[in-house]
Amino acid sequence: MRGTERDLAERLRRLEDREAIRDLHNHYCFIQDRGHQSHAEADVEAFLRLCDLDVVWDNSPDGSRAHRGRDAVGAYLRELWPRFQNCMHFVHNLSIVFESDSRARGRSSFEAVGDIDGEAFVAAGYYEDEYVRTRQGWRFLLHREVPFFFVKEKEGWAGPKPAIMREWLAKRVV
Amino acid sequence: MRGTERDLAERLRRLEDREAIRDLHNHYCFIQDRGHQSHAEADVEAFLRLCDLDVVWDNSPDGSRAHRGRDAVGAYLRELWPRFQNCMHFVHNLSIVFESDSRARGRSSFEAVGDIDGEAFVAAGYYEDEYVRTRQGWRFLLHREVPFFFVKEKEGWAGPKPAIMREWLAKRVV
Amino acid sequence: MRGTERDLAERLRRLEDREAIRDLHNHYCFIQDRGHQSHAEADVEAFLRLCDLDVVWDNSPDGSRAHRGRDAVGAYLRELWPRFQNCMHFVHNLSIVFESDSRARGRSSFEAVGDIDGEAFVAAGYYEDEYVRTRQGWRFLLHREVPFFFVKEKEGWAGPKPAIMREWLAKRVV
Repeated sequence: MRGTERDLAERLRRLEDREAIRDLHNHYCFIQDRGHQSHAEADVEAFLRLCDLDVVWDNSPDGSRAHRGRDAVGAYLRELWPRFQNCMHFVHNLSIVFESDSRARGRSSFEAVGDIDGEAFVAAGYYEDEYVRTRQGWRFLLHREVPFFFVKEKEGWAGPKPAIMREWLAKRVV
Repeated sequence: MRGTERDLAERLRRLEDREAIRDLHNHYCFIQDRGHQSHAEADVEAFLRLCDLDVVWDNSPDGSRAHRGRDAVGAYLRELWPRFQNCMHFVHNLSIVFESDSRARGRSSFEAVGDIDGEAFVAAGYYEDEYVRTRQGWRFLLHREVPFFFVKEKEGWAGPKPAIMREWLAKRVV
Repeated sequence: MRGTERDLAERLRRLEDREAIRDLHNHYCFIQDRGHQSHAEADVEAFLRLCDLDVVWDNSPDGSRAHRGRDAVGAYLRELWPRFQNCMHFVHNLSIVFESDSRARGRSSFEAVGDIDGEAFVAAGYYEDEYVRTRQGWRFLLHREVPFFFVKEKEGWAGPKPAIMREWLAKRVV
């Protein structure tokens, strides 16, 4: 390949990488939505296939509540998802920065709506992610959810943030 | 064009196709938002121009409520849109898969907010689409809306899904 | 560079430009979210760095409430942002049209959720933007926010649009 073509091919691949990472998030949402309703092992497995073997799911700022590796993340989701009757997730404002040819970081905003304990809830917050290019394509290497609110719809989110429903904090899945 | 260039040109066109299909959805939202407020024939016509002549609008899983062809879809929208005072639509998580150079499928999530019968409503669900490349660009070939909820804001969406407001089911536009 | 390569390079840059403009919106949301909570000068400055020196922020249809130039926009934001305790913004349906190699227009929909005067609010509307390519990359040249509603969550948005909470209209920041 000539020099100019190589340059064009690299820029093109970077754009394709962005699309692949967007799709990673889209599929994560779709699978999670299904999983919250089905509570089926197949959906947990489908989500884990979007993750690198060394994936870390860490909603804590200091790693104290990190789930490390596919097995640990799977165990966490098998406990987490059944707590919801159903849910839809929306990813917004996804901004991707490449650190190398095979590593990238993403920041996005999310919303979720659905039912928990028989009540309508609304959630919003930020996703912070790291992605790695594997032989099978881009995969999640780190996933972090930083809540802005997660409240019963009838109670609303006014007040100090993150605003988290009392019942959730009482029986948090660590 | 040399072989490598042809390959680059094809990959580039695929990315441009993604952008064109995204814009198809964006314009669908903007036009629909206007049409729900204007109830004007011009907005129905503008939407139909985003559709292939053979477009099918089918919100049923089995084709029993399909509207086939631009004329039928136009007739449906002329009945549907005036039921709303106004509305905004948001498309999220759009994931596109190409089946050939000129055919693609999309899956996305949507939200809508607005007024119906003098009351604030919220809606969420999934869009399932097929697109075709025509001489005029990409067009909708199939559009399907799978509701998660469509409820009065004051009543909320708790309960079995899809959660649809009673009044809507009573006078459904088929 | 050969003719075909030049053509490919131009189409590629156009796609990169779309990504850069999307990121401009993403960063605008993230910075604004921080600024509504921090009320810090650093966040106002970070937002202004996304803007051309000649940026205009004009929420009026006739220019009567336009803020012209970075200094004027900064002064406006220093008055506007402290009125909110916190906020998240989501940009949807971003549709970009290029007018030249270095100028583009965008239309998008937005939602915002957060607290104002101790109460939960929801907002939705349209953004209308112009962008210019500078030596430092794409920047906002015009930003306009066209509200659909901006209401207390407990009051809802039913009624004539734009539906704006009474308290906001009473002490509008011009």
